[in-house]
Amino acid sequence: MTGKLYFEDFAAGDTMSYGSRIVTREEILAFAAEYDPQPMHLDDAAAEASLLGGLSASGWHTCSILMRMIADGFVLNSSGMGAGGIDEVKWLRPVRPGDVLSVRHTVLEARSSKTKPDRGFVRFRFEMTNAKGEVVLEQTNSIIFGRRNPGEAA
Amino acid sequence: MTGKLYFEDFAAGDTMSYGSRIVTREEILAFAAEYDPQPMHLDDAAAEASLLGGLSASGWHTCSILMRMIADGFVLNSSGMGAGGIDEVKWLRPVRPGDVLSVRHTVLEARSSKTKPDRGFVRFRFEMTNAKGEVVLEQTNSIIFGRRNPGEAA
Repeated sequence: MTGKLYFEDFAAGDTMSYGSRIVTREEILAFAAEYDPQPMHLDDAAAEASLLGGLSASGWHTCSILMRMIADGFVLNSSGMGAGGIDEVKWLRPVRPGDVLSVRHTVLEARSSKTKPDRGFVRFRFEMTNAKGEVVLEQTNSIIFGRRNPGEAA
Repeated sequence: MTGKLYFEDFAAGDTMSYGSRIVTREEILAFAAEYDPQPMHLDDAAAEASLLGGLSASGWHTCSILMRMIADGFVLNSSGMGAGGIDEVKWLRPVRPGDVLSVRHTVLEARSSKTKPDRGFVRFRFEMTNAKGEVVLEQTNSIIFGRRNPGEAA
């Protein structure tokens, strides 16, 4: 990645890949202790008896890791202004200690703001995969980006 | 709250409130440094110049705090088995250092699993409010609960 990315640099169908990042057992336990202390995220025996079949990261931890990978992948080098919410998250497979995660996104839509000529909305589908290539998380949401050339016709 | 909650204890229209929890500046900065290092979550000047108008928690931090409040509010005292994803999140207002957050949920739907007679799905709308009563976050998702009496007719 070279120059800073603006709204005009995103178009439907574009894809980009970034990562990887390893998830540690310590990180899984620390996040769960603070934010999601359900036994399947904190205790090996409880986790093995659960739907997850073994110690696994909180889904919110996985989303937070995705956010960090998105930030490092391109948002910190962009005119990104934030997001108003999340359209959908699917936690498809457990994220285990030692998993190596990568992200690929696809731009679903890029549309100018109707009220603010200096920005636009880019809707993404994010897919996070483990080292086996299995998709562990799918997420869809829009991010607001400033335009390189504010005031251009939509 | 007294006895442990099972699938049968949830019905559409039920509401429940829990909290509160205070959000500290230190916690906002620590979460952002680890998972969402966008300047508006880490730096006062950048935050004031941003859409947020001042230092504010990452939306993912707010979701994680909500998860902890849901866990403490009722899930840890239930037959909750986890969740497969999130239907929608709306980050409606900034969450600031010192904010005191409370949660109210409404049960939208409770339906038996078609394939597993020992469990069912309960769909919730969660609303998180600050001390002024302003809604800062809305979230909709389903949680899987074990049945008190497995095998009952749906």
